[in-house]
Amino acid sequence: MTIACDHDLFRRLFAAVNAHGRGEAGWTRPPWTDALRAAEAEVIGVAEAAGLVCAHDPAGNLWMTDPAAPADGLVAAGSHLDTVPAGGAFDGAQGVVSALVAVLALRAAGVPGAERLAVISFADEEGSRFDTPCFGSRTLVGTFGDEVADSRDADGISIREAGPPRPVDAAGLHQRLAAYYEIHVEQGLALEPADVSLGIATRLSARGRWEWSVSGEANHAGTTPMAGRRDALVCAAAFVLAVQAEAEAHPGAVGTVGRIGVEPGGTNVVPSRAFGTLDCRALDNATRDAVVEALRAGFPDVAVEHRSTDDAAVFDEGLRAGLFAAATARGVSAMDLASYAGHDAGTLALAGVPSVMVFTRSPNGISHNPAEHSDEAVCLDAVDVLADAMAERLARP
Amino acid sequence: MTIACDHDLFRRLFAAVNAHGRGEAGWTRPPWTDALRAAEAEVIGVAEAAGLVCAHDPAGNLWMTDPAAPADGLVAAGSHLDTVPAGGAFDGAQGVVSALVAVLALRAAGVPGAERLAVISFADEEGSRFDTPCFGSRTLVGTFGDEVADSRDADGISIREAGPPRPVDAAGLHQRLAAYYEIHVEQGLALEPADVSLGIATRLSARGRWEWSVSGEANHAGTTPMAGRRDALVCAAAFVLAVQAEAEAHPGAVGTVGRIGVEPGGTNVVPSRAFGTLDCRALDNATRDAVVEALRAGFPDVAVEHRSTDDAAVFDEGLRAGLFAAATARGVSAMDLASYAGHDAGTLALAGVPSVMVFTRSPNGISHNPAEHSDEAVCLDAVDVLADAMAERLARP
Repeated sequence: MTIACDHDLFRRLFAAVNAHGRGEAGWTRPPWTDALRAAEAEVIGVAEAAGLVCAHDPAGNLWMTDPAAPADGLVAAGSHLDTVPAGGAFDGAQGVVSALVAVLALRAAGVPGAERLAVISFADEEGSRFDTPCFGSRTLVGTFGDEVADSRDADGISIREAGPPRPVDAAGLHQRLAAYYEIHVEQGLALEPADVSLGIATRLSARGRWEWSVSGEANHAGTTPMAGRRDALVCAAAFVLAVQAEAEAHPGAVGTVGRIGVEPGGTNVVPSRAFGTLDCRALDNATRDAVVEALRAGFPDVAVEHRSTDDAAVFDEGLRAGLFAAATARGVSAMDLASYAGHDAGTLALAGVPSVMVFTRSPNGISHNPAEHSDEAVCLDAVDVLADAMAERLARP
Repeated sequence: MTIACDHDLFRRLFAAVNAHGRGEAGWTRPPWTDALRAAEAEVIGVAEAAGLVCAHDPAGNLWMTDPAAPADGLVAAGSHLDTVPAGGAFDGAQGVVSALVAVLALRAAGVPGAERLAVISFADEEGSRFDTPCFGSRTLVGTFGDEVADSRDADGISIREAGPPRPVDAAGLHQRLAAYYEIHVEQGLALEPADVSLGIATRLSARGRWEWSVSGEANHAGTTPMAGRRDALVCAAAFVLAVQAEAEAHPGAVGTVGRIGVEPGGTNVVPSRAFGTLDCRALDNATRDAVVEALRAGFPDVAVEHRSTDDAAVFDEGLRAGLFAAATARGVSAMDLASYAGHDAGTLALAGVPSVMVFTRSPNGISHNPAEHSDEAVCLDAVDVLADAMAERLARP
């Protein structure tokens, strides 16, 4: 069956959400901030007006469900409303708005079993503030225990202080889900060259985050001869270049140092300590680990500490088939696509929830940047396909 | 003549000053902070008790002079009380305390012309907070104009807001000085191997500070293949290594990147901008400039912007001879020493004030670090030699 979605609602709600956290450099909605709460309020307003019950679980994930929703068997769609610093309008917000528009259309169409429909806006997906990516979904599935809520942001504030006091109480709630769909702007440049609108995700890459640091000796930048120095930043700079080189040397791998700092940080002081982050991904777990081991072997003086890893996640073939069928029925072009990004859908898939993602074509491959984009027509095609696929899924237990 | 200095006063006042700004990582007394003011208060208490008038000039320099001090012809000694972040106990504080102990001894001895004696504690010598090294002395001699007071610290606070509102009103006050002496812990490792207690400075090296930045393109750390990246930090890392290489390639040069940062600073975002500082020094101006030009030529994408330079400064031969004579008379070993550090004495020398410095032997060559040190006996020898030399200088107009 084909479901008639309210395209104008998509336009209005997407714009309303992105009125919050907008700055000159892009959109910035860190988790548990006023900007994020204001974006949530836009979504909640529309959901409640349509009769959905909106509530945060103990991990801070926002669930929008029918008043008569069953304890399990939910057919859900969603994404997140938080952004990286100076990010784009699409990453996360598109998925939440698309999910709500699709679910409201299904409810308006009076599909049988509509009380099983749910929309979820996950908490702290980006992990930019506390370095805790997919915090909400990982807490649900138990990958993150109570201690993760003590992670602190740059100002020393913990998740527990900024947001929910006992997130771990949400553990296990993913068992309510029989299916999870997530629409997302394409984060790469595969669909445009192929002239295809939608990418139906096959898997998420293996991913991981590490923190590294190296010690030197603080000394006067003028009076210490070059030969007598132990400059922590010089070692760190070589490490940054090695991250680039090792990722290039391992096919399919990517490696990034997104943060760096030095101590003591005086213009005229040789750095005594340098530190930063490492993000490394590959299509399979072994390649990801090989890159990091090569860095450790090459830099014995650099302490590389594991923060988090996600193994490669495989998406549900049944849900993928349903999406392809819906796209075909509507004449929307679609193709398989692997993703190198982390997403809540991957966390859920690894925990056994049948999950899938739909990527909407990006004209430039840019993401985590205000230039990220999908044409509105493609976004609306994705909403329509999602609604049809969810209707088909709802017809089964 | 030999002057009897109060060695116990040196011990007590040096300890009292260094009770302020002390933390686990070292001493931190940024300019115009409570820690700096508390240290000044210790010095002021001793100076006023001995009959000196203590007053800050419009640039924030603390002058301690006789109530009958003449308008010019002052024979002064001093240094500064601010520190780099996590610095040592000696850099600056030793020179101020030594100067005051020497001047009080000369006054107590009733030397003729004692009303011409002065002690100066210069404002913001390190420049660590606003990146404005030798702010106090440079403002006196006119190297820094009024606009420099708008320099801002990491919190966005300007010198004008944190400290004096119109520093430029102090311009020209250096003309009061007929001579300026500064005692300082050795910042290098030349005296210990030579078994010599004091270094009588010949010159300060040519120095300069620059800020650099490079732009890339923010993008997703997972979904952007290595080949398609414009990672600002990867370029910056190569620049940091080139600073090291170019300094090593130019004999007598040193180059340091003491601060670095990236934007947007997300763990999972390819940096769109990297920025930092460059401190470069050499014995002569031409070598210093050649290092920076080589970096600019090698990195056309990195914008290297000039912040400040000091040409090599030559110290006064008459004052140097007086110090050597005083050391010889007391049996204290002394030798010529060039310095790669910036000091207010150099600023004054470049502006025509006869100036000189005395470095006290460091056992390890470390400075700008809590491990910086001179043995107390060497410090006290320096105070005694300073007092004798100032007495000899005072006998002339």
